[in-house]
Amino acid sequence: MAGNSFGTLFRVTTSGVSHGPGYLVIIDGCPPGLPLSVDDLLPDLQRRRPGQSSLVTQRDEADLPEIWSGVFEGVTDGTPIGILFRNSDQRSRDYDDIRDKYRPGHADFTFDAKYGLRDYRGGGRSSARESIARVAAGAIAKKLLSRLGVRVLGYVVQVGPIRAEIPDPTAVTLDQVESNPVRCPDAAAAARMIDLIEQVRKERDSIGGVCELVATGVPAGWGEPVFDKLKADLAKGLLSLPAVTAFEYGAGFAVAQARGSQNNDPFVRKDGRIGTETNRHGGMLGGISSGEPILLRVAVKPTSSIPQPQRTVTRSGEPTEIVTRGRHDPCLLPRFVVMGEAMVALVLVDHYLRWKAQCGPG
Amino acid sequence: MAGNSFGTLFRVTTSGVSHGPGYLVIIDGCPPGLPLSVDDLLPDLQRRRPGQSSLVTQRDEADLPEIWSGVFEGVTDGTPIGILFRNSDQRSRDYDDIRDKYRPGHADFTFDAKYGLRDYRGGGRSSARESIARVAAGAIAKKLLSRLGVRVLGYVVQVGPIRAEIPDPTAVTLDQVESNPVRCPDAAAAARMIDLIEQVRKERDSIGGVCELVATGVPAGWGEPVFDKLKADLAKGLLSLPAVTAFEYGAGFAVAQARGSQNNDPFVRKDGRIGTETNRHGGMLGGISSGEPILLRVAVKPTSSIPQPQRTVTRSGEPTEIVTRGRHDPCLLPRFVVMGEAMVALVLVDHYLRWKAQCGPG
Amino acid sequence: MAGNSFGTLFRVTTSGVSHGPGYLVIIDGCPPGLPLSVDDLLPDLQRRRPGQSSLVTQRDEADLPEIWSGVFEGVTDGTPIGILFRNSDQRSRDYDDIRDKYRPGHADFTFDAKYGLRDYRGGGRSSARESIARVAAGAIAKKLLSRLGVRVLGYVVQVGPIRAEIPDPTAVTLDQVESNPVRCPDAAAAARMIDLIEQVRKERDSIGGVCELVATGVPAGWGEPVFDKLKADLAKGLLSLPAVTAFEYGAGFAVAQARGSQNNDPFVRKDGRIGTETNRHGGMLGGISSGEPILLRVAVKPTSSIPQPQRTVTRSGEPTEIVTRGRHDPCLLPRFVVMGEAMVALVLVDHYLRWKAQCGPG
Amino acid sequence: MAGNSFGTLFRVTTSGVSHGPGYLVIIDGCPPGLPLSVDDLLPDLQRRRPGQSSLVTQRDEADLPEIWSGVFEGVTDGTPIGILFRNSDQRSRDYDDIRDKYRPGHADFTFDAKYGLRDYRGGGRSSARESIARVAAGAIAKKLLSRLGVRVLGYVVQVGPIRAEIPDPTAVTLDQVESNPVRCPDAAAAARMIDLIEQVRKERDSIGGVCELVATGVPAGWGEPVFDKLKADLAKGLLSLPAVTAFEYGAGFAVAQARGSQNNDPFVRKDGRIGTETNRHGGMLGGISSGEPILLRVAVKPTSSIPQPQRTVTRSGEPTEIVTRGRHDPCLLPRFVVMGEAMVALVLVDHYLRWKAQCGPG
Repeated sequence: MAGNSFGTLFRVTTSGVSHGPGYLVIIDGCPPGLPLSVDDLLPDLQRRRPGQSSLVTQRDEADLPEIWSGVFEGVTDGTPIGILFRNSDQRSRDYDDIRDKYRPGHADFTFDAKYGLRDYRGGGRSSARESIARVAAGAIAKKLLSRLGVRVLGYVVQVGPIRAEIPDPTAVTLDQVESNPVRCPDAAAAARMIDLIEQVRKERDSIGGVCELVATGVPAGWGEPVFDKLKADLAKGLLSLPAVTAFEYGAGFAVAQARGSQNNDPFVRKDGRIGTETNRHGGMLGGISSGEPILLRVAVKPTSSIPQPQRTVTRSGEPTEIVTRGRHDPCLLPRFVVMGEAMVALVLVDHYLRWKAQCGPG
Repeated sequence: MAGNSFGTLFRVTTSGVSHGPGYLVIIDGCPPGLPLSVDDLLPDLQRRRPGQSSLVTQRDEADLPEIWSGVFEGVTDGTPIGILFRNSDQRSRDYDDIRDKYRPGHADFTFDAKYGLRDYRGGGRSSARESIARVAAGAIAKKLLSRLGVRVLGYVVQVGPIRAEIPDPTAVTLDQVESNPVRCPDAAAAARMIDLIEQVRKERDSIGGVCELVATGVPAGWGEPVFDKLKADLAKGLLSLPAVTAFEYGAGFAVAQARGSQNNDPFVRKDGRIGTETNRHGGMLGGISSGEPILLRVAVKPTSSIPQPQRTVTRSGEPTEIVTRGRHDPCLLPRFVVMGEAMVALVLVDHYLRWKAQCGPG
Repeated sequence: MAGNSFGTLFRVTTSGVSHGPGYLVIIDGCPPGLPLSVDDLLPDLQRRRPGQSSLVTQRDEADLPEIWSGVFEGVTDGTPIGILFRNSDQRSRDYDDIRDKYRPGHADFTFDAKYGLRDYRGGGRSSARESIARVAAGAIAKKLLSRLGVRVLGYVVQVGPIRAEIPDPTAVTLDQVESNPVRCPDAAAAARMIDLIEQVRKERDSIGGVCELVATGVPAGWGEPVFDKLKADLAKGLLSLPAVTAFEYGAGFAVAQARGSQNNDPFVRKDGRIGTETNRHGGMLGGISSGEPILLRVAVKPTSSIPQPQRTVTRSGEPTEIVTRGRHDPCLLPRFVVMGEAMVALVLVDHYLRWKAQCGPG
Repeated sequence: MAGNSFGTLFRVTTSGVSHGPGYLVIIDGCPPGLPLSVDDLLPDLQRRRPGQSSLVTQRDEADLPEIWSGVFEGVTDGTPIGILFRNSDQRSRDYDDIRDKYRPGHADFTFDAKYGLRDYRGGGRSSARESIARVAAGAIAKKLLSRLGVRVLGYVVQVGPIRAEIPDPTAVTLDQVESNPVRCPDAAAAARMIDLIEQVRKERDSIGGVCELVATGVPAGWGEPVFDKLKADLAKGLLSLPAVTAFEYGAGFAVAQARGSQNNDPFVRKDGRIGTETNRHGGMLGGISSGEPILLRVAVKPTSSIPQPQRTVTRSGEPTEIVTRGRHDPCLLPRFVVMGEAMVALVLVDHYLRWKAQCGPG
């Protein structure tokens, strides 16, 4: 109830802070019989990892998961999957600044307001390093989904004013996404994004962007029709990530300017099933998946930590300045992609199991 | 788990369909001692009511709530508040069309795909009439919030291409919102919106728009920092409403083009408390309220039911056409406002109680 | 979270008080496709009904459920089942006594302590009339279970010092149980129980007893192994009923005197499956059903309301006396049986759906 | 939903198996500001520890908790408390027997039936070593309760046929309980219990017993009146422990033989508050605490693992024999006491926070 768990039937609980011993993750509800090992988690953890390129922070974190339970003789056994990550790169440093001053754009002030105290070291519980737990859980969710023919893929479609051209979101491949450090499948746009991020870095600043996420292979029928609509849970999952400020699916904000006669997608017969001719509905109708690809976009704000002086106040309210030291990504988008994928996968697996409970066979 | 409840500590559960006897609502967790009567629910129910103007559907629904429990001698007594609404305007009609054909933009197909059958009369469980239950619960939430100095207000800021100018969202009053049938506090824009909606109606079409929602008086400290971020739960609450396709808070999608140095709001001392000079963060940092006004915007798609022929298929997949009969709003926005307010209020009350449990006095 | 819901995947939420307009029940998560009508609820509601014999209170309540949603064209449609009961027999009376004095054995004082006020009319929310909602939900759960070959049956095995002889709990039939007003399948014991209850009534007193509950046909594999053990949820479900003060399964308290070599049930091959030779484990091992019959016993205290003066205090703590007026069962056991069955059925259906989600086919 | 979490507002999630790397525990919802260190956990962990005396198993487990998060500069900071325990004493051994044969009284068969596979090493997830996680969480709950003036204490009142005399359960002290290895505050009975357990051990057998638990200082008003009655959640918490087969509170099963006129506890004025003259209601009325001491008793079955041959079957159903090797307590009761206390404390803290959310100040 204090908000450190996500999901209902595939339930992920995390604990940990960036500058303590490490993170614990418990995943409860995974069906038995899924082959699983650390190797299944490493690719996505590697994509999340800092220091992959000059575009992202150069910290060296081992990011190696230890699976402590839930897997027996190479397959999940139905008991909770316990995973831990050790924090390895905690250089001793002076935290006086962030202990006593509130960093703009960060949760320092709101943590103090809520709890009366906070672990100020590196952001404590609000550090984005917590996403390592989500990415590990998401990798398991993705593996489950892949057995059902569902694929979740994200990529960057905008950095600052630069927008990618993606003719067909469902045709984007993981290889395309991983072919450049900004994770944008439009190579020309990617090159310009990279230039922009390098320039922003030199200017000791940061820049925002937009990530698009696509889930293909989701059958019609997942999602609960009233409060737990699939679109609602996807919105929650993605907004629960740090720095996300906006969410849309299908036509998104563009519906504001649309007429019903344009916006409605005609139903047609497709490949022996019923589908829609167009997909402005982003794969969800009435909160339930339609069988068409699920299309989402989220905005990610520019990194709050920037290596230039910013005005702020101390804990007692005195005006002051702060310069965020340390290494921070000038643009969060490249590393965000895999975090977004993780949350989408977690939501989808959860709704798959909910569908199975109420509407599945048996 | 089948998604007909919302909230954790202030928990709303609804049942009912548009063409059955009516709706039941149970609100569990309301603190005792709140003066409450049907009169507290009527204003918002009236704002949600169809037939208020030529802009909205002309059905005549009584929409009178009956409070069956939870209130004793004029105040809440801590036990669950049971409310029922009777469906009064069920004209007998021919449902053959929507029984056998899938209406574009509606949940007909996805309900069939999920459950194998559906109550096809007037949308059944997916009918927007379900929002009557939410608006009633939201009115109670608002009353609780008002005792804490919190006000939630929504209004229309865009219909089709017409955008309102709102110099200061926190200065908008309920009277301004209610001063015109489109519920847009910018009178000039409102007039043009009304003209557009009338034109769209004549063209047998519908039009989308954007609703802005503002919560003032929320103290710093509400919201859980990881998965149940306040922004995440607000996104979920609003996306759980029918026709909502997009959500943003604060600077929203505009952060994609922003630099960190612009986007971060400097902390300053304000009126004896710590606040921020600007409010691009929309009143939430790290998922926790900052004490600044909470600013949200959602996109609402054009009404799917339009009185012109649309291409679709039958349940068996045969191509056909459908004309949605009945009275439907050509633009959902005017009536949406109070539904959006309800969801925001429900989320805020829930997080207030969660704050109280973990961090409150005692 | 205020405790008016039960279950996770088959979730029952109730509201209502004994002397308001009535009770609302919402059952969320029922699989679609179950044939269901009011007729399916009536037999159990009739068994719960007051006034069936001289052994139970003579109030006349209609107890007729109205199904408002969740059933379409005779079968459940996967949306929440809304049921309401009207309170019909609210004779106008003088509540001054119970408004100002605390009835011994009742919740009057604790409600005041918790909420600061209470609906004192007839017990308000703590009235056992709330069980009407549970019995209705339980009847639906039983119908679902019966399709899986599971039967739940309860009966009285003790009233005061009189104990029934039940050679084989799994051989008891509903007809045997219903063959006498005390619902004890041992006819000789039943006769003596009836005499005792009549005598107790004449003495203006009440008497306690024990109810045994048997679930047959439960396959091996239901129940979660750690906190949500099947035995734990059954204990909770039954202890959530008013007047229940003790629970045991299988050998129960007798294990205290047993040796492991006696108490362990040897595994054997039975009818093509693996089972146990004896059933001291009451059908559950490690919190999971074993495939053997589930055997439970609960103690039910003597009715707290007795028509003789009892010492107590007023709300302000002044010593006084109270005589509980109105009609009350001198022994709760005969009507308790169906309430116990309902809770057992609700727990079993919930764990069936949980099994299906994690371990079921697909 | 797979049952590895307990509680709602003070929520404990555990993972781990007896013969893997160790156990993870995440405690979510602890209020900030509680001084906490490993030293607060050690006394109860020591009481749970195997090898304390000849009465309990002689394994050597370190049982040292590592607190990984949730405590900052010596006090809880409101973020989830992550704790891990390493498994240190995993002697390499031959598990062929328990891999292929079902141990009577254990969960081997039911795990296989549920999941299709199981970690057979030392009981896997069903090992009672999981209680180490509960005891650690319980120690934190107890510390929170002690600040509210609430004390939870358990002790052994029966082993086999030997029953202790406890004139006043609320007068028993921790020192008395800890003064002998069987944890029975009646020294004479304790001596006989010890003799019996030694004799049972020599006979290669095991013996059951009864544990009594007392919570003093609980104010009137904790507990939810309908499904989440305090008595119901206590029953669930205690029945969720391995080997517990029965639960009663207050007069318990003895109510079956009682008359209402005897069983009702008269209300009286006591020390400036309203209380009851007697406490047959065990401190709970209508599911809510009354302010009187909470009195509970649970039965614990004889250890299923006994070092003598028992009849059973193989996984394929072939009749065979099994001798449980390894060191096992001949009587679980002495080590059970602290596990029972932990569950009672967890339930009480949870209901305290629930009371605070709905009915507390603010």
